[in-house]
Amino acid sequence: MTYDLIIVGGGPAGMTAGIYAARQKLITLLIANDFGGQMARKTVDIENYPGFEKISGWELIQKFEKHLRKNKIDIEKDTVGKIKKISSGFAVFTSSRKRFQAKAVIITSGADPRPLEVPGEKKFIGKGVSYCTSCDGPLFSDKEVAVIGGGNSGFEAAAFMTKYAKKVYILEFASKVKASEENQQRAEKTKKIEVITSAALKKIQGKDFVDSVVYQDRKSKKLQTLRVQGVFVEIGNQPATSFVKDLVDFNKKDEIKINPKTCQTRTPGLFAAGDVTDVKWKQIVVAAGQGCQAALSAYEYLKTSGT
Amino acid sequence: MTYDLIIVGGGPAGMTAGIYAARQKLITLLIANDFGGQMARKTVDIENYPGFEKISGWELIQKFEKHLRKNKIDIEKDTVGKIKKISSGFAVFTSSRKRFQAKAVIITSGADPRPLEVPGEKKFIGKGVSYCTSCDGPLFSDKEVAVIGGGNSGFEAAAFMTKYAKKVYILEFASKVKASEENQQRAEKTKKIEVITSAALKKIQGKDFVDSVVYQDRKSKKLQTLRVQGVFVEIGNQPATSFVKDLVDFNKKDEIKINPKTCQTRTPGLFAAGDVTDVKWKQIVVAAGQGCQAALSAYEYLKTSGT
Repeated sequence: MTYDLIIVGGGPAGMTAGIYAARQKLITLLIANDFGGQMARKTVDIENYPGFEKISGWELIQKFEKHLRKNKIDIEKDTVGKIKKISSGFAVFTSSRKRFQAKAVIITSGADPRPLEVPGEKKFIGKGVSYCTSCDGPLFSDKEVAVIGGGNSGFEAAAFMTKYAKKVYILEFASKVKASEENQQRAEKTKKIEVITSAALKKIQGKDFVDSVVYQDRKSKKLQTLRVQGVFVEIGNQPATSFVKDLVDFNKKDEIKINPKTCQTRTPGLFAAGDVTDVKWKQIVVAAGQGCQAALSAYEYLKTSGT
Repeated sequence: MTYDLIIVGGGPAGMTAGIYAARQKLITLLIANDFGGQMARKTVDIENYPGFEKISGWELIQKFEKHLRKNKIDIEKDTVGKIKKISSGFAVFTSSRKRFQAKAVIITSGADPRPLEVPGEKKFIGKGVSYCTSCDGPLFSDKEVAVIGGGNSGFEAAAFMTKYAKKVYILEFASKVKASEENQQRAEKTKKIEVITSAALKKIQGKDFVDSVVYQDRKSKKLQTLRVQGVFVEIGNQPATSFVKDLVDFNKKDEIKINPKTCQTRTPGLFAAGDVTDVKWKQIVVAAGQGCQAALSAYEYLKTSGT
């Protein structure tokens, strides 16, 4: 069968697109490995999605997902490996080698944590290296951990980890951290957090599990070893677009360029919404708004293109 | 005093801009006569604001307003009469002759119901003529009413009025109504609703209160009188922009043209969000997303402009 629409991704943009597409009676498939996108990695409560004064990321995901599932929509638990243009629209191939097709596609694959790209990182994923404190934090009770990155997400991750770990180092490459005053003050209040600036991470080491990291002090140029059993990577995100390289244009940040009024990419019938796009402000309510716009634009495209 | 930011309007765009501005620690004033914007005129439950499967317009407004008021923000209950550019930013004059000033302004004044512009309309406002069934509907228990406009909002208003009125006419200018199949089928099921197409409304008449309307049957060219005590106008909306004509550009629909990435108008420091703008899709979640974007852009403008 050919779907009217395939939505790739289950974050706020994808779930909102799904709600709107189903309400427009489009025969729709949403492909996502899990729901929530970056909301799932939130360690602090969300206080800026209008209508909910204060809600955990997990709870808000539940509410979005329940709302989505109330509508008539197919959901496939998988990741997308490739999207190809075919005469009738698009063929979408998943990691588990399934093939789906649709007349239109909305990409809402969001952004993944940016890797450190240092020796030992890949080897120890799941064995001490993590990109998600809210997922893996509880595994590090009474351990010592390092958070790599001194921005807001690094400080928020560190504050969250003080609930479990006995010691939390924040390693920042620059000579000053970039986190807000509020986050810095909160870190200073707890004795568990120690901030190390001008620290260039060189490797992650251990036997079966992480037992230490090595960094260069960028002032003294000396190598330092820090005994930690956990490493949390918080150096930002990168758009998840590997499966669609040849059908869209990118900006310098590797974000998909869209027409901001319709969310259409350079390929007719192929739309994108949320943090995977070049939208200036990456916020849940902005991603949701874009998901709505992409779905209504896809509906208009299907009605007028005669496909 | 000079505010960092004045937000004009209290719909979803304005309330979201207020939440974001306050969280960015901008000294902010929000001017609105009431909260909710078009949500306040909704007669059917809202089922497409993500996170709430089904909620009345009134309840969703309450949730937004509570969320807004949890933040540090000044609120002035008034309407805006004029915005002028001054050297330090903008002067904002209200209908009750107050004057406020700010370094930046976000316009989220939304859209008002489009008037019929027929004799008797203005005279009988509040005396039988209404633009809001959810506000005034209960006043017409056991009366006969006419809804002018056969689009979705007209059909939804008519369905709502069947709770109160004993008879509801829908008058549509064109030879066919534009409402969705779903809305038409719902109307057919109730014997209270009668649809009259090819009807050009000519006047609204009565003594102290409306007692009838006169329309021309556009096929037979004959004038017809319809005994009704209420007239609900549902022929669409027009952007509320009279107070800002000389600082912004408009499209053909009289909507404010904005840079869709930043929500800035052609005047630096003057932003707009929601249904007052040329945004393609007029939806609550889109307006909220734009309110967020406008507030963050205003914050960036204030930080970088050195004002």
